[in-house]
Amino acid sequence: MRVLAREILKAAQDGVKEARVAGWVHRIRDMGGVSFVVLRDRSGMVQLVLDGKPDVTLESVISVVGEPALNDRAQGGAELRVRAIEVLSRAAVDVPFQVNGDVSRMGLEAILDNRGLSLRNPKIRAIFKVQATIIAAFADHLRSEDFTEIKTSKLVGGSTEGGTELFEVDYFDRKVWLAQSPQAYKETMVGSGLERVFEIAPAYRAEKHDTPRHLNEYVSLDVEMGFIDSEKDLIELEKRLLSHIFAEVAAKNSEELALWNAAVPAPEAVAASPVIPYEEAMKIATAEAHGGAKIYDINPEAERLLCEWSLRETGSDLVFVNEFPRRHRPFYTYPLDNVRTMSFDALFRGLEITTGGRRHHDYQTLYDTLPRFGLKPENMEAYLAMLKYGCPPHGGFAIGCERLTQKILGLGNVKEASLFPRDRKRVSP
Amino acid sequence: MRVLAREILKAAQDGVKEARVAGWVHRIRDMGGVSFVVLRDRSGMVQLVLDGKPDVTLESVISVVGEPALNDRAQGGAELRVRAIEVLSRAAVDVPFQVNGDVSRMGLEAILDNRGLSLRNPKIRAIFKVQATIIAAFADHLRSEDFTEIKTSKLVGGSTEGGTELFEVDYFDRKVWLAQSPQAYKETMVGSGLERVFEIAPAYRAEKHDTPRHLNEYVSLDVEMGFIDSEKDLIELEKRLLSHIFAEVAAKNSEELALWNAAVPAPEAVAASPVIPYEEAMKIATAEAHGGAKIYDINPEAERLLCEWSLRETGSDLVFVNEFPRRHRPFYTYPLDNVRTMSFDALFRGLEITTGGRRHHDYQTLYDTLPRFGLKPENMEAYLAMLKYGCPPHGGFAIGCERLTQKILGLGNVKEASLFPRDRKRVSP
Repeated sequence: MRVLAREILKAAQDGVKEARVAGWVHRIRDMGGVSFVVLRDRSGMVQLVLDGKPDVTLESVISVVGEPALNDRAQGGAELRVRAIEVLSRAAVDVPFQVNGDVSRMGLEAILDNRGLSLRNPKIRAIFKVQATIIAAFADHLRSEDFTEIKTSKLVGGSTEGGTELFEVDYFDRKVWLAQSPQAYKETMVGSGLERVFEIAPAYRAEKHDTPRHLNEYVSLDVEMGFIDSEKDLIELEKRLLSHIFAEVAAKNSEELALWNAAVPAPEAVAASPVIPYEEAMKIATAEAHGGAKIYDINPEAERLLCEWSLRETGSDLVFVNEFPRRHRPFYTYPLDNVRTMSFDALFRGLEITTGGRRHHDYQTLYDTLPRFGLKPENMEAYLAMLKYGCPPHGGFAIGCERLTQKILGLGNVKEASLFPRDRKRVSP
Repeated sequence: MRVLAREILKAAQDGVKEARVAGWVHRIRDMGGVSFVVLRDRSGMVQLVLDGKPDVTLESVISVVGEPALNDRAQGGAELRVRAIEVLSRAAVDVPFQVNGDVSRMGLEAILDNRGLSLRNPKIRAIFKVQATIIAAFADHLRSEDFTEIKTSKLVGGSTEGGTELFEVDYFDRKVWLAQSPQAYKETMVGSGLERVFEIAPAYRAEKHDTPRHLNEYVSLDVEMGFIDSEKDLIELEKRLLSHIFAEVAAKNSEELALWNAAVPAPEAVAASPVIPYEEAMKIATAEAHGGAKIYDINPEAERLLCEWSLRETGSDLVFVNEFPRRHRPFYTYPLDNVRTMSFDALFRGLEITTGGRRHHDYQTLYDTLPRFGLKPENMEAYLAMLKYGCPPHGGFAIGCERLTQKILGLGNVKEASLFPRDRKRVSP
């Protein structure tokens, strides 16, 4: 019966005479008559003590039987004194990536080119342990508020937001496109009577820019909710949701946070996060800008300035900007007045992690609005049909899973938070 | 403060004088001086009693204030005596689908063409309430066994299983393909030290057949696990997993199961499910076949016969077939001997819901095996690299989410268990 590396301390304390561990050879120190091997498994590391020099290469997978023993100088306070060693998989000696090296000195391209190896480094693997917690906590919280998880098609015959920035797919004898969001589908599900839905799925943007904040394929954490009054109901929901996610990451990933010297916001800070109308946000960003250059939009610079301002003024580096102008938002966004909309962004630690808002739910109002956006009702029949037969007031938002992961851990590039990121040049591994 | 339809009984029992409900107009009965309206929301239905005839169409969304009152003759034992009614969204009168009709008389094409409307029928919506439970239970159980959830790219630069049956995507200035499974990625994650991983994501098969058991896009519930001895470890895991899923569906979806007159297998039945080697399964299927025609493969007919046999002989309509011949399995399947493999299928109520097995984990053994499958090592470098630097013995499987949903509820066609199914002809809604 195999035990995990982190269980060896307890086995030693309990006086267990024989235990078997299995995992990867992380480090080998040959001290002449005796060798110290650090074995790595999914739970952590444990020191093995062997007579002589083991016939094994770094990163090989081994299964080892020995006696657990307390040792204050060993990592974790215990070690395994080896009686027998079996090599399950011998690693070639030309490993192209130094698994046990310093992550801060590893280049991003090398990390991504060698994903199967770079993830063996506990600090890099920690990113995806945190991401798994985010995904689970997102779903759990929404289920606690009576949301239903849905899975919608990523192959769409058309697009509600026009044909730009979409990847085209050869689908038998026709063309379809990869969905850039489940927008129309999640609205349909609200209107179909589920009322409250969420989806965790890939989304695709055929955008050509290659920046530390963009991915061409990302995991979208989507939410849609019926019977709301305004975007403020959604902002309150997102605050509860992020509070739960942060609490779960704090509870389940303390070791992973420590590896990155990172901390999640406290629930009080999330609750105190300001909600700033767009026009006011422009003024704050302009006042914060060094050199005093006027800020004309919530661009990356403004996102950074607003979060800095908020952290200083409210103690929260999470900021909601609402009431975006109609010209900045898609046709389906519900108007607050002739100029402004019931929409919002969430900015976290200098980065937009969410866009959302209330949507049009009345057929005729939306029908009359379309020409203002250069859209023809006859091209929007599927979208309009959704509203024609009874649709409650509703809205929703999406959280970029990789961006949230990135900002929780303080990663420099969102690609670090994607297992197999896709950009203009990268389609493998 | 809105309350849900199913909360009106308790409000009436508690003597609450005023309550507000909101939802869709499911049915209207005009009795002359008084009308009965059935209101439908995400929780169920409640009868509204109004003076006169309400100015509202079927399927409109309304918000209603009134007094809750006990009434044994009303569905759910209570009704709401309406004081004020507000129409939030008036439905057009030409609703192209009879929401409150009999599902058994609705055609599949009409159900799928009108998804936003057909889902308003509680029996059809029930399918996706059950599916949401399946997805949550799958993830919860695996987390309880220390599996980590992963999200891998669905855009792949090549395929481990050859280039057939793949959808091609225009990706900037090159071609990529939609992943037919996360096979190589989940193996990579096991080898990277996560050891135990699962993924819930769409998978794509460009297969031309249009049958009640095929979808071109489906939700794949994928599992991969390191440090196993054989496919039998995986079969045991799948039994525990399905037991938990069935228990959760029984606990959370009793109303949905009742609507379909369906029941899930008991844990004892799942535990008692037989594991039959391929050769023996062929003999059993042949003996079961009416007319005695020899069965040459685990085809749909054999799947049906084996489940019937098992239900009769063991009380379980879940059957595992293992030790498939090497010629029937992909190159990466771990051999048991020169003829058989450590692989398995799970058949449930007459349908294959899972394929899985142990995989090759040794670089040289796989390298030497490739020519037998007509594959050239130089074309498989990425796959081989995964094994070159230390990979534990491992294996995994995938459950088709829609097929499991279909068989739990006894649906005639797997497309009924997909919100927006894609087949050769259907790419919308």
